[in-house]
Amino acid sequence: MLVVQKYGGSSVATLERIRHCAARCLATAAQGHRLVVVVSAMAGETNRLIALANALVQPGDAPQASRGPYVAPAKRTPEHERELDQLVATGEGQSAALLAMAIQDAGGRALSLVGAQLGLLTDRSHGRARILGIDAARMQRELDDGAIVVCAGFQGTDDRGDVTTLGRGGSDTSAVALAAALRADVCEILTDVDGVYTTDPRVVPTARKIDRLSFEEMLELAGQGAKVLQIRSVELAMRHGVCLHVRTSFDDRPGTMIVPEEPQMESVQVSGVALERNEGKITLTGVPDVPGVVATIFRIMAELGIVVDMIIQNTGAGGRTDVTFTVPEAELDRAAAALAGQTMGGEVPSLSTDREICKISIVGLGMRTHAGVAAKAFALLAAESINVQMVSTSEIKISVVVHERYGELALRVLHDGFGLGVAP
Amino acid sequence: MLVVQKYGGSSVATLERIRHCAARCLATAAQGHRLVVVVSAMAGETNRLIALANALVQPGDAPQASRGPYVAPAKRTPEHERELDQLVATGEGQSAALLAMAIQDAGGRALSLVGAQLGLLTDRSHGRARILGIDAARMQRELDDGAIVVCAGFQGTDDRGDVTTLGRGGSDTSAVALAAALRADVCEILTDVDGVYTTDPRVVPTARKIDRLSFEEMLELAGQGAKVLQIRSVELAMRHGVCLHVRTSFDDRPGTMIVPEEPQMESVQVSGVALERNEGKITLTGVPDVPGVVATIFRIMAELGIVVDMIIQNTGAGGRTDVTFTVPEAELDRAAAALAGQTMGGEVPSLSTDREICKISIVGLGMRTHAGVAAKAFALLAAESINVQMVSTSEIKISVVVHERYGELALRVLHDGFGLGVAP
Repeated sequence: MLVVQKYGGSSVATLERIRHCAARCLATAAQGHRLVVVVSAMAGETNRLIALANALVQPGDAPQASRGPYVAPAKRTPEHERELDQLVATGEGQSAALLAMAIQDAGGRALSLVGAQLGLLTDRSHGRARILGIDAARMQRELDDGAIVVCAGFQGTDDRGDVTTLGRGGSDTSAVALAAALRADVCEILTDVDGVYTTDPRVVPTARKIDRLSFEEMLELAGQGAKVLQIRSVELAMRHGVCLHVRTSFDDRPGTMIVPEEPQMESVQVSGVALERNEGKITLTGVPDVPGVVATIFRIMAELGIVVDMIIQNTGAGGRTDVTFTVPEAELDRAAAALAGQTMGGEVPSLSTDREICKISIVGLGMRTHAGVAAKAFALLAAESINVQMVSTSEIKISVVVHERYGELALRVLHDGFGLGVAP
Repeated sequence: MLVVQKYGGSSVATLERIRHCAARCLATAAQGHRLVVVVSAMAGETNRLIALANALVQPGDAPQASRGPYVAPAKRTPEHERELDQLVATGEGQSAALLAMAIQDAGGRALSLVGAQLGLLTDRSHGRARILGIDAARMQRELDDGAIVVCAGFQGTDDRGDVTTLGRGGSDTSAVALAAALRADVCEILTDVDGVYTTDPRVVPTARKIDRLSFEEMLELAGQGAKVLQIRSVELAMRHGVCLHVRTSFDDRPGTMIVPEEPQMESVQVSGVALERNEGKITLTGVPDVPGVVATIFRIMAELGIVVDMIIQNTGAGGRTDVTFTVPEAELDRAAAALAGQTMGGEVPSLSTDREICKISIVGLGMRTHAGVAAKAFALLAAESINVQMVSTSEIKISVVVHERYGELALRVLHDGFGLGVAP
């Protein structure tokens, strides 16, 4: 088999853990598998480099540690973003070289590939580059030569040879893209949890590890608050039919396989439930119900780069409508400020916000064929007197917004009510 | 003019110093010059990375900080050396990106180039790569585009695209090689001293900064213990006729220009004197004076990779000869162990070592035409009752070995005796 293994930052955080990863790589190779490894930077290194860059250009300001908007907007020139990518990509280069050395030291053959050596061609969007193609010739040659190939994750190069980074969760994306290009049999995501759970085990003690899940279900769960995998890497895996295996790097137990849909999967009504706490709700009341007005609201949000999640529109009496939608909680104030006082259809609707909400999503392929999942969900919530504020549904998902004080209760009620806590 | 400026690790050791370098780069550009900058890693970073690598492969051992033999010989496989190069080269990549950002932040245009982006092609000798050629197309394009090009020093790539490093002082070598390829008007080496001195000012208080020096003199001084410039970068500059300017990065005063020989240079008899403390002496007594025997000694040294500096052979009575030579003090025991008990010409000569020696070298183009420099030197030393143990001469250099307790005295006597302490 050809196996791609991805180790996250916590798995390579110390030299001792790097040695542990090396042993695991060699154990995989000893089973006769060919192995490509993708590594993140040692935990903390990326943030250290970003803090250096921020302190450099904004002396005196507190360094922002979160990747995303690296620095204040005024500094985010394309030239600055290019340098930031050149800078932060060194973090993965270091962990890749160290892991390759550790494998060598344990008696294996290994080499690290970084930047242009990877053959991972992207567009020029620094900090959030899209993968355009992969030239796997070098990698293939080294594999044929018997080496374990250790790739720096999170990075590629553009058509000029400049280093680009893939954005948050980029190492997962690197791993899946390489697995697709090499036609790997499996892409293992090694992490500090042992798989994908029916829900968050910290909230629901009866949560159970899922053995097998379809891409579609994983996409919905990832999009609804399950943090194990970035949605982008799941999309990429689905598009290329790359089987993912999410498992712990601390022992050999199998984790969760994420695979193309299989016929028997629909026999399970619901696969998992997820809780998303970080949303806020905006309600515009008395919006004139004329064409184009609601579109204006969402054009304004798009211009601010704010992602709107759930939307509900109630057409009321007198040619007026109420519009309610949710946005990330961190963007709530900015979104409200942009809409407040806006004239729509000749009038200024009244605006209210609510950050004391949370969203619970029920995901399962079985919903397609099993009627009554929604009805059962509402019944379960009603039995606990939990009021549902908003509802949205897709083919394999139902999401409900409730007051945040009921979030954990709702999650437990739905999880156990759909029988997720018992082994199937 | 096209100017290449090289900033050492101490000049980019902190964010504040990086901002200072950025200001200096912009001042140079504001004078209408096109500018290529070469940077070392932030002081301490290279050693930090090497220590990480050593601790990884030799857990429990004290990390060796000195670059050179990175790790214990058993670990120095070609594969390990490759990874070490991939690892340590990230240090210069980080400082290059940070300096480019600092220039941008101060209002300039800049971009960093690392690894394959540099177009600096080397052979595959990791840790001590030789430069084979430079493809300056990208650099030229960026210069034409008005940018200050910030290059990661110390590194290149081989024909496979693998990162190589140039060995100790490699950033100086990078700077000179780029200056040669770009036909730069001058290559400025910005450092924490303000030029090349007639001798070590810490030992001889009357030492004076030299304004202008020939390549040949600088080569001899560098080879004899003056630490300002690595001999390899001076050789490269001489071969390509690249004018070097060694100056401080802390202010704007001119430093020392190192240039092709000029006619008036020979009017100065002696340009500088240097003290080398880190040599040791081996004497083999009673070596049979038959052809090939002495060659055996130096073949053994060559096989161990030990560089022999001064050699003296006295043919004595009875077909026997004494051979005395110096090696780096750190290699003295290894050299002696390899020779001890060796049969030479059918006999085992007796061996003695002496580490309490030092070497003083007098360098000057004027020696070629001014007879009597050697005679004057010996008279100056004799007047202080300093015994000369070994002598070796080249066209523009005289070196003498004396007991190490007289080293500093000898240096002062020769320096002031040749009038170096007074402005010419």
